[in-house]
Amino acid sequence: MTYCVGLRLNRGLVFMSDTRTNAGVDNISVFKKMHSWVIPGERVITMMTAGNLATTQAIISTLDERSKAPADRKPSILEAPSMFQVARLVGETVREEIHTNSFEGQEADSSFNATLIVGGQIKGSDPRLFMIYPEGNFIEASAETPFFQIGETKYGRPILVRVYDPDMSFEDAVKLMLVSFDSTIKANLSVGLPLDLQVYENDSFQVAREQRIALDDPYYNQISTGWGEALKEAFKSLPDFTF
Amino acid sequence: MTYCVGLRLNRGLVFMSDTRTNAGVDNISVFKKMHSWVIPGERVITMMTAGNLATTQAIISTLDERSKAPADRKPSILEAPSMFQVARLVGETVREEIHTNSFEGQEADSSFNATLIVGGQIKGSDPRLFMIYPEGNFIEASAETPFFQIGETKYGRPILVRVYDPDMSFEDAVKLMLVSFDSTIKANLSVGLPLDLQVYENDSFQVAREQRIALDDPYYNQISTGWGEALKEAFKSLPDFTF
Repeated sequence: MTYCVGLRLNRGLVFMSDTRTNAGVDNISVFKKMHSWVIPGERVITMMTAGNLATTQAIISTLDERSKAPADRKPSILEAPSMFQVARLVGETVREEIHTNSFEGQEADSSFNATLIVGGQIKGSDPRLFMIYPEGNFIEASAETPFFQIGETKYGRPILVRVYDPDMSFEDAVKLMLVSFDSTIKANLSVGLPLDLQVYENDSFQVAREQRIALDDPYYNQISTGWGEALKEAFKSLPDFTF
Repeated sequence: MTYCVGLRLNRGLVFMSDTRTNAGVDNISVFKKMHSWVIPGERVITMMTAGNLATTQAIISTLDERSKAPADRKPSILEAPSMFQVARLVGETVREEIHTNSFEGQEADSSFNATLIVGGQIKGSDPRLFMIYPEGNFIEASAETPFFQIGETKYGRPILVRVYDPDMSFEDAVKLMLVSFDSTIKANLSVGLPLDLQVYENDSFQVAREQRIALDDPYYNQISTGWGEALKEAFKSLPDFTF
């Protein structure tokens, strides 16, 4: 499994992903699931991947190869005129990759599926955030649904739903995501540290912040231990039940 | 889907279940998923069911029919000498029912699976709590794993893990379960009110409390609206992130 969250705020986009991959509980590894393509001053595109590792790596590599010499290798996400066209291109790549493995490859126990979160901004238009399905189609974040989760989404969802606010600061958004990740990590062995964090500020056309949060990160550990206590206090603050 | 929780406390057992069943989003109904068999002063057995409704109803009806005239219709859960034997008997019934439908019945789109939580006490031994799998085998709650969830378990799990305490009062346990149910209901349309609640006090050999919590229950609504605020306060109380 995997856990990734992409958040759309009024001031920009925030991305967080875990790095654990597993093929059974005795075969776990660390792989980066967050990838960016930047032309400073012109565009920033960030993707996070969940699903079959071979599929997601192939998707990222295909997109990346084409971006190395965009003039020769089309279609490149570095030449796409809008984030919508980027999402379309990624969706097509996802569809092709899954199709190749599923219908022309060997039989496999696990499915070849992949789901992606793609966000960023291209000069001349607003920042946008998409979730791309294994079928290659996609949906866009909106005021009503301002964030996307992929992978093991359920444990960490209630806190996002309750605390998210479009006006929140980047710092609060990171704190919120860390609580959501901590709830997930505590419940599901297939999601694990280190975490990758990236912040994009509207109209900056560069990555504002990029950080890896390691197992021994003191702030993460403060959140992880503090949240249990904070929840207990919150619970106590509610009116008591009487029969 | 369904959501049921069975909690083992030092002072007794607490059960809560939702009542929503669905076969598609346009076919939802209310069915009781909590069933009890009581011989006052001698035994209390409570079950909660998740899974295919036809299967779970057949399981409950089979067990119930046998209990009506236990002398004639064996094996009856009212004659089983221990909670372990009750769990075994329920497990066998689950296995038989699923087997009948799966192998001798028609093909169906959905699976015939069912999962149960079974708890109670029989005079002469301690109260016990079991989770019974569709395969008919089962596990028992212990000090390390003092509660079981069935159905849509993930959204409501983090709060149970963080706040549960074996010494807590029945009132606090109900409050905790309501928060867990509220998080689930807010996230998953297939879990819905009314909720059924039952409390069993150790060595009482009768149901201490039984209650249905309806959609307009003022306490539930207090918890449901208050929890959002309480979570935000808890969130604020954590140290802030800085880049």
